[in-house]
Amino acid sequence: MKSIVLGTIGIDDIETPTASVTGVLGGSATYASVAATFYSPCGIISIIGSDFDDQHQRLLEQRSIDLGGLQVIEGGETFRWGGRYHANFDGRDTIFTDLNVLPLQDPHLPENYRNTPYVLLGNTDPTVQIKVLDQLTDPNLVVVDTMNLWIETNPTLVEEVISRSNILIINEEEANLLSNKVNPSAMVEDLMAKGLEAVIVKRGSYGAVMRTTDNWFFVPAYPLVEVIDPTGAGDSFAGAFTGYLAKQNDLSQASLRKALVHGSVIASYTVQHFGVENLTKVTAEQISARYEEFLSFSQIEAGQ
Amino acid sequence: MKSIVLGTIGIDDIETPTASVTGVLGGSATYASVAATFYSPCGIISIIGSDFDDQHQRLLEQRSIDLGGLQVIEGGETFRWGGRYHANFDGRDTIFTDLNVLPLQDPHLPENYRNTPYVLLGNTDPTVQIKVLDQLTDPNLVVVDTMNLWIETNPTLVEEVISRSNILIINEEEANLLSNKVNPSAMVEDLMAKGLEAVIVKRGSYGAVMRTTDNWFFVPAYPLVEVIDPTGAGDSFAGAFTGYLAKQNDLSQASLRKALVHGSVIASYTVQHFGVENLTKVTAEQISARYEEFLSFSQIEAGQ
Repeated sequence: MKSIVLGTIGIDDIETPTASVTGVLGGSATYASVAATFYSPCGIISIIGSDFDDQHQRLLEQRSIDLGGLQVIEGGETFRWGGRYHANFDGRDTIFTDLNVLPLQDPHLPENYRNTPYVLLGNTDPTVQIKVLDQLTDPNLVVVDTMNLWIETNPTLVEEVISRSNILIINEEEANLLSNKVNPSAMVEDLMAKGLEAVIVKRGSYGAVMRTTDNWFFVPAYPLVEVIDPTGAGDSFAGAFTGYLAKQNDLSQASLRKALVHGSVIASYTVQHFGVENLTKVTAEQISARYEEFLSFSQIEAGQ
Repeated sequence: MKSIVLGTIGIDDIETPTASVTGVLGGSATYASVAATFYSPCGIISIIGSDFDDQHQRLLEQRSIDLGGLQVIEGGETFRWGGRYHANFDGRDTIFTDLNVLPLQDPHLPENYRNTPYVLLGNTDPTVQIKVLDQLTDPNLVVVDTMNLWIETNPTLVEEVISRSNILIINEEEANLLSNKVNPSAMVEDLMAKGLEAVIVKRGSYGAVMRTTDNWFFVPAYPLVEVIDPTGAGDSFAGAFTGYLAKQNDLSQASLRKALVHGSVIASYTVQHFGVENLTKVTAEQISARYEEFLSFSQIEAGQ
């Protein structure tokens, strides 16, 4: 099965406590689609300018990412973002944001996108997320991400998007804002009460928690002694999660749990390098080996 | 097998965002020994005044806790502590500390304590921890806790205690201070380099991580939508961990992992009530059921 992802494509300048890079390919749709294509075919819904570098275009094409939903604005410039991470990676400052061709105001889905069964609505203006939802023909699964900005400026539309989605992936700060709860479990229960089939809260270096109707599931973050660049970790997590489910075409509890581990595996490779390019070099064998490592982190022999 | 625990016995006044209590039995040795005795016999090394309430004394006796190492100071007053938790339980302020008969300066271990195979050195002045270590005859396992105060005021002696212990149980802030690392994995690796067989870092509502020579093991915190009182959670965690290992008399990787889950189970019951008294009412059936729940939080079906 196939998935589509809505999100940004951008060119990033990134500074971390130990190094910096300029002009690397980034953006939420880029990370998510690269991650998804480790598992199954993926199409992008996004927007770029005609300045978009051939080399970056080839990277997406080499992963067979469907670019039918990618708008190219003639004479326009691609979105650019610059950020600087704090000393211990527990936060970052935006240095500049050149929106350029953004926002994508009028997503137009090609015919072959409309009946895509697996959909990831990356973090963007909920009016755009709704325009995508309106063009879909009965998807099996809609996964949605959002952020503080939209929760604060347009809570009604954020609620509408959530009510039309199956799974919400969100970080702790956003979960707190969206639920008005402080207790981390109460926060998740409150979000579940919106009618979702699963709520996944990303907890950074503490991993992630997934609440489904019947169960809690916890996955740690991969214990890296050195993080190079956290940019795109959340997007590649969501992309791998969705891409894995599309591959399995199975939304059982067992499948959702495995998808969460795969999301964590891909996110762990993402933060080991700058930009998305190095992520594309990860092999199926590496993914498989790290997946087994993740299982070993919580293995318990039988008997109490 | 049997364990002994070094720590405080005190009377607590506690305020939380939702309720408050005064005059409840508390202290690190109290929580740890009550927790340990769910699994195996335990003796206390501590100090109280002759004002210690009969009812509190009976509570310890009813759990068959060995009080041979408990010094009672005639005419002295028992340690008292008052604390107030912040709105979201992410911190607390000490309202008062009446040391009274504390510190326990000269721990004298009765003959039957000296060859105890399992030892928990609760957080206290490292000079006292060393005096206890000096009286022991070749224990199987020494588990040690410490805190910021001693790491800052007497790092040399803290290092000596650690070098004579097998397992360090510590919270994140203390691990950061003791290791001088910020990355949570590098922090743990740095502590392991002190020659320990295992390092356990308590992460509050994120659970705990255990590093052994070969492996990482992660256990989440039990997802409670309401916490009543976090006092004693860390001490009961360490007590249950040590008591379980004493019961099994098995220090294999498999046994250590189960011990960590049992520590988490008991800590989760601790935070559901004020004081230690309610913890004594937890049944073996409740412990067993919650242990199975913990396993369910990370269960994954075979196959990727």
